[in-house]
Amino acid sequence: MSLDCDPLLTDLYQLTMLDVYAQSGMNELAVFEFFVRRLPPQRQFLIAAGLEQVLQYLETLRFSAADLDWLAQSGHGSPALIDQLQTLRFTGSVHAVPEGTPVFAQEPLIRITAPLMQAQLVESRIINLLQFQTLIASKAARCVLAAPDKLLVDFGLRRAHGAEAGVLAARACYLAGFSGTATVRAGFEYGIPLFGTMAHSFIQAHPSEIDAFENFARHQPQNVILLIDTYDTEAGAAKVVEVAPKLKDQGIQIKAVRLDSGNLAAHARQVRAILDGGGLSEVGIFCSGGLDENALQALLSQAAPIDGFGLGTSLDTSSDAPYLDCAYKLQEYAGQPQRKRSEGKANWPGRKQVDRHYTPEGQLAYDILRLDQDPWTGTPLLQLYMDQGQRTQPPEPLQQVRRRTVQELQRLPAAARCLEAHPWRYRVEISDSLQRLAQEVDQALDRQNEA
Amino acid sequence: MSLDCDPLLTDLYQLTMLDVYAQSGMNELAVFEFFVRRLPPQRQFLIAAGLEQVLQYLETLRFSAADLDWLAQSGHGSPALIDQLQTLRFTGSVHAVPEGTPVFAQEPLIRITAPLMQAQLVESRIINLLQFQTLIASKAARCVLAAPDKLLVDFGLRRAHGAEAGVLAARACYLAGFSGTATVRAGFEYGIPLFGTMAHSFIQAHPSEIDAFENFARHQPQNVILLIDTYDTEAGAAKVVEVAPKLKDQGIQIKAVRLDSGNLAAHARQVRAILDGGGLSEVGIFCSGGLDENALQALLSQAAPIDGFGLGTSLDTSSDAPYLDCAYKLQEYAGQPQRKRSEGKANWPGRKQVDRHYTPEGQLAYDILRLDQDPWTGTPLLQLYMDQGQRTQPPEPLQQVRRRTVQELQRLPAAARCLEAHPWRYRVEISDSLQRLAQEVDQALDRQNEA
Repeated sequence: MSLDCDPLLTDLYQLTMLDVYAQSGMNELAVFEFFVRRLPPQRQFLIAAGLEQVLQYLETLRFSAADLDWLAQSGHGSPALIDQLQTLRFTGSVHAVPEGTPVFAQEPLIRITAPLMQAQLVESRIINLLQFQTLIASKAARCVLAAPDKLLVDFGLRRAHGAEAGVLAARACYLAGFSGTATVRAGFEYGIPLFGTMAHSFIQAHPSEIDAFENFARHQPQNVILLIDTYDTEAGAAKVVEVAPKLKDQGIQIKAVRLDSGNLAAHARQVRAILDGGGLSEVGIFCSGGLDENALQALLSQAAPIDGFGLGTSLDTSSDAPYLDCAYKLQEYAGQPQRKRSEGKANWPGRKQVDRHYTPEGQLAYDILRLDQDPWTGTPLLQLYMDQGQRTQPPEPLQQVRRRTVQELQRLPAAARCLEAHPWRYRVEISDSLQRLAQEVDQALDRQNEA
Repeated sequence: MSLDCDPLLTDLYQLTMLDVYAQSGMNELAVFEFFVRRLPPQRQFLIAAGLEQVLQYLETLRFSAADLDWLAQSGHGSPALIDQLQTLRFTGSVHAVPEGTPVFAQEPLIRITAPLMQAQLVESRIINLLQFQTLIASKAARCVLAAPDKLLVDFGLRRAHGAEAGVLAARACYLAGFSGTATVRAGFEYGIPLFGTMAHSFIQAHPSEIDAFENFARHQPQNVILLIDTYDTEAGAAKVVEVAPKLKDQGIQIKAVRLDSGNLAAHARQVRAILDGGGLSEVGIFCSGGLDENALQALLSQAAPIDGFGLGTSLDTSSDAPYLDCAYKLQEYAGQPQRKRSEGKANWPGRKQVDRHYTPEGQLAYDILRLDQDPWTGTPLLQLYMDQGQRTQPPEPLQQVRRRTVQELQRLPAAARCLEAHPWRYRVEISDSLQRLAQEVDQALDRQNEA
């Protein structure tokens, strides 16, 4: 199954609602916005990511004959619905925050304006794409903040939740400032630099560790990073020193060693001493094994002599905060502002824009959440990406997004850049006009409920 | 991109190792096993899942011309490697624990026996497939234990980590005993029953809540489950009572109402009273909104009058334990048993089997982890699924797996079925012969390291 632009990648209730809309002729213009209700306590900011995949999905959305046959036969679509789905294309507009931009609670990352049926159908996949990449880019950005000058590589495919999660996590990490990934498909799809040398099984499959080192170096001379913890880390380092002159005679330079277990700070120090003592001060030390941003910070605060890190599980699952409390909500229908009022889940009505305000030094100061029609007070974050179903700008190169993220991370207030959970929250003001509109919508709803 | 049988869905180091193997002619028979090192503290058992997708992947594994061109051009494959990959097919054997079987730490879920290059290449995707579905099936099984007689529906697509995670989570939940899913693609792919009616946006898009109820019922008369918490839950229930006689006159029966916010136990009681008072005692109450197995247990222990539950985020991300500490390790190469000894990551060498022992009443008593060649002492869990690259049995129907899970959950000891984290652990003994082999492998490694 090819899933990325799949119209059946939706919740049944979307089709059930569409069926009612098709039968009762309800298809006025609707406005939906995706936003995060509140940030996980361990996060002071999020990095918007996933927009490019949403645009691809909207551009290519269409039901195949097989999809429609199945819907009809399985009783999940009336003839009226099937008829509408046959020609359904996304013809609406998309406003969104550029990927790589810091965002905060209640701020729309995307606004979809389209006939109701289209705008409703795409809810499930839009949330699915935006929440995951935003989640991972935000986690990865914390790793970049923890180890700003180190080589950081995504190793997470195996523990990611399925194939697409592995590939999109690689994209989200790179976008957030990582150096690259081990995931080959992500290199193919997105041109992300690939990293990878050997597993423990490679060492084990050879008669001895030193045979493995030599065999690898001989056949991968440009890429000699040797895994030294299969049996005993320091003994492994000593073997690297032993084998180095022989390889040098063959014109082969050992680039680095990799440590994957134990107390990484202590091992790195001992290994550094062994390598330096053996005249291999130019050989780097790369570490992996259960790392997250807190481990990076702790290792570097101990001045552990480590040049690069591979991160897997905690990164690709955002294990300390594996989801965002987010929603895609109807803000306006047929010209009427809308608001859900369910307990603990109320949202601000209408088409909204975020104005960002900066300090004179260019740091983020505060945001104002306002109605789109209100006059600007700062720099508006949401831009037009699609109009009448057509892109208004070409896909943004991933490198450009990555540069934006790196710059934007520098502009975060110091409290936002701090990894520890603390009560500080970035200020997001609600404009007076938006507060008034919420009151008006509530009063209208109250009148309607009393009626 | 279609990802499910993608040979580039791997870590670069697999290709780097394969390149060395191709160049140096290393391709003897290798045996790898996938196992979970230790269970998350919140889990007393796991439910094996994901085997069917692994078998499909192995059956169809091949590099396309585009894959190979890209590998060559991007410098990730020597001519010798590209030559080998061109004709690479999986020709090995697969032994595995049937899906739906409870498994514990250190027990192999799958054993791959194949020429080294094949067995190594598939590591990343095998872990990716087995860890995720096992993770979700195990979480879902806990929900089934918490609410054994209730309708349980997977609502998690939107918060799942990407498309494949959403679809495979639906499969894993159903396999573990759920009634169905909202994810349409999972209905298409696996025939899983689909559930879904309306979102809050449906209510909001109508002039009033009561209009929304009537319009839905008229056009979906077989599927009338009304969402009543958009504005005020009890007022919503009163409107259901108001509209019911009119619908009844049209021959339409309201099946249930759905609550999605607030204190669900309190609301369910009040709504039950309102419905019963209005003569609607046959109308069920379905709840959703941030639920997990602990919430289900708490609601049912309070005797909240709830007939079914939709679970999303916590289920599809296994949010309290979003990954398993698992590995796919080389156990034997060219007839020599192998063992990794890295600190905290040592594993048992050789080809292994799990013998399960039961109490006279048929409950799980204990397991013995032994060498495959040793005589049986109980019921061996690993079976042959693939030989010389061909399936030895047809794909197991998902319904059959589901029945197995339901039966097996009944056979778990009471301590395993308890949802709270506690120190009890199921007993997995290591056979004497396996312990001896580990010693022998260690001694051989020590001799080799001293040499």
